[in-house]
Amino acid sequence: MQQTILITGASSGFGAMTAKALARAGHRVYASMRDPRARGGAAAAEVERLAREENLAIRAIALDVLSEPSIEAAVETILAEAGRIDVVIHNAGHMVFGPAEAFTPEQLAALYDVNVLGTQRVNRAVLPHMRSLGQALMIWVGSSSTRGGTPPFLAPYFAAKAGMDALAQSYALELARFGIETSIVVPGAFTKGTEHFAHSGKPADTGRAAAYWSGPYAGVDDQALKGLANLEPADADPSKVAQAIVDLVAMPHGRRPFRVHIDPSDDGAAIVNGVADRVRAQLLERIGLADLLHPKPETQPERNLEMPFANFKMPEAALTKAQKEDLVHKTTQMFVDYFGEAVRPTTMVLIEEVPDGGYGRADEVFVIPDAYRAKE
Amino acid sequence: MQQTILITGASSGFGAMTAKALARAGHRVYASMRDPRARGGAAAAEVERLAREENLAIRAIALDVLSEPSIEAAVETILAEAGRIDVVIHNAGHMVFGPAEAFTPEQLAALYDVNVLGTQRVNRAVLPHMRSLGQALMIWVGSSSTRGGTPPFLAPYFAAKAGMDALAQSYALELARFGIETSIVVPGAFTKGTEHFAHSGKPADTGRAAAYWSGPYAGVDDQALKGLANLEPADADPSKVAQAIVDLVAMPHGRRPFRVHIDPSDDGAAIVNGVADRVRAQLLERIGLADLLHPKPETQPERNLEMPFANFKMPEAALTKAQKEDLVHKTTQMFVDYFGEAVRPTTMVLIEEVPDGGYGRADEVFVIPDAYRAKE
Repeated sequence: MQQTILITGASSGFGAMTAKALARAGHRVYASMRDPRARGGAAAAEVERLAREENLAIRAIALDVLSEPSIEAAVETILAEAGRIDVVIHNAGHMVFGPAEAFTPEQLAALYDVNVLGTQRVNRAVLPHMRSLGQALMIWVGSSSTRGGTPPFLAPYFAAKAGMDALAQSYALELARFGIETSIVVPGAFTKGTEHFAHSGKPADTGRAAAYWSGPYAGVDDQALKGLANLEPADADPSKVAQAIVDLVAMPHGRRPFRVHIDPSDDGAAIVNGVADRVRAQLLERIGLADLLHPKPETQPERNLEMPFANFKMPEAALTKAQKEDLVHKTTQMFVDYFGEAVRPTTMVLIEEVPDGGYGRADEVFVIPDAYRAKE
Repeated sequence: MQQTILITGASSGFGAMTAKALARAGHRVYASMRDPRARGGAAAAEVERLAREENLAIRAIALDVLSEPSIEAAVETILAEAGRIDVVIHNAGHMVFGPAEAFTPEQLAALYDVNVLGTQRVNRAVLPHMRSLGQALMIWVGSSSTRGGTPPFLAPYFAAKAGMDALAQSYALELARFGIETSIVVPGAFTKGTEHFAHSGKPADTGRAAAYWSGPYAGVDDQALKGLANLEPADADPSKVAQAIVDLVAMPHGRRPFRVHIDPSDDGAAIVNGVADRVRAQLLERIGLADLLHPKPETQPERNLEMPFANFKMPEAALTKAQKEDLVHKTTQMFVDYFGEAVRPTTMVLIEEVPDGGYGRADEVFVIPDAYRAKE
């Protein structure tokens, strides 16, 4: 089934590969990037070329994970166009390399901002909608560094990715009862095939860095990077990360793995996460919250507390086509009556399909949660 | 041997207990707190009472981990008074409780600031001195949440503590060759005996929080907290964390465990960290950097690149008392000649003991790294 998918950081690396692979798998993909005009608009042009030449439902969209207005505008655009967001993929991220001590606190804060707070901003923009769907998927592109063996000199990045992984684990539990499933994709260190290492930032305090590079750590930077590269098999292929995400999206809801590791160097993250996820499950069982480990297959749509008709109930049984059309009509009318002509689909809980010949303007297209779909 | 110790967040909880226990064990303890005048100065008064009544070398000192000037002032005061800092204990921290989605990005940033960037600020203030000692100890008070089973609704805190743990792991590798040893103390959830849970912050976005508490997560907050409390044995004793730190400080340099778990509820962190630390060691062995797993027992003092006499070499062999006095005298003169009367011990690398009848003003007391101490 075609899913509408928003992915962040899709101008290069895993993000670009994944957006493309998902579009080729038949999904409607919003390949978001901080600035589609960057580097002469090359990344956005590549997306447009793909859409045109292969007739794919993919589109580049501006979304800067550091900016709430930018995120909100992107989400509004997607909801106005596609009416829904079924899958969000948190992929945007940035790396730095150098002695921990030589990074300013502001640099650490900035790295947390792009790698972690960015996901929080996106979540706060999409979750009211996704919770209302009653069935959705959130994918986090983590890092094997969070649990696997790690070399020195990547401290601010490792700290941020560890924070992101912890956030993903908590969100998984807190969204399960809204029917939102979580999978964490865990790539190992791919030193080739993406610009992740090449684009990495440097410490601002070069004096402090010199105490390491001119002191007892002379040459350790090279040794660490070459060591990582040597662990990587010659056939390590970063597009496997994209393929893993395509596979996740295709799996039945509620049956997806909590984590998928794609780590050709085998740095140990898979075994550590295996143990960690087991003790995580055990703790939830011990406190009587084991149901949070999996999304509720059918969720009641949340009551939108800001609406005057918050207690409006739709029948839980399957609907006939005629009943559905009637419901769409009445619901539309009710919303238009209340909100006037400015009614926007992003502000309400609604219906998936519009009967042919429908209800006028595009912004009156409503989406109904799966639980209420007609069994036709 | 008496160590000079700086501990953060010592106004309450683990920090207050640890500062007291270390002072009773005979160490010179700087019990730092954001504002010693807070709550009518109760915490600082308790420290002073202890010092007076039990004749202990403990002192309350103002240090706000959010403020570089505050940290620098505290470190300067300690170095002027005690001449050295052998041990730093990163203990300051804060917790929040609520649905992840209901916290603003600013709240997540603030929590990272106090729990993680605070350690970075302290490190940047103390490490030039500690690296120059050639032998020192850094203790991080982490959290079993980073690797153990975790309940929902503590996402921003768990993300920050995971970041702190990752930072600690990287620093351990990057400081080893300077002779600085790292131990991470991993407390489990102590729901009683400290104010950690009682003082926890709440989400700013109460509307979002209501979607959880009035929706499918009604009652889950209580269930999670009571569940955690029920896992805790009746005799769970937070002072065991303080005792574990006293024991760590007492151990011979280079022989301390990388982690110590004090987790009466046994949430699984110990087993996960056991596996994780093993794969961490394995990766470092595979890339030829296994030496970073343990501090160098004897380290060359770093060259201070900002000084004109950066290439000044002291003899590596043991010194006689007469040689040492001569060295102290000449070194003092050289620093005073260069820096004038404003010479401050915090700006240079020097000698532990001043011969009786010494060298004038207190700010001419110098500290020499262990490696150059006279074997008397």
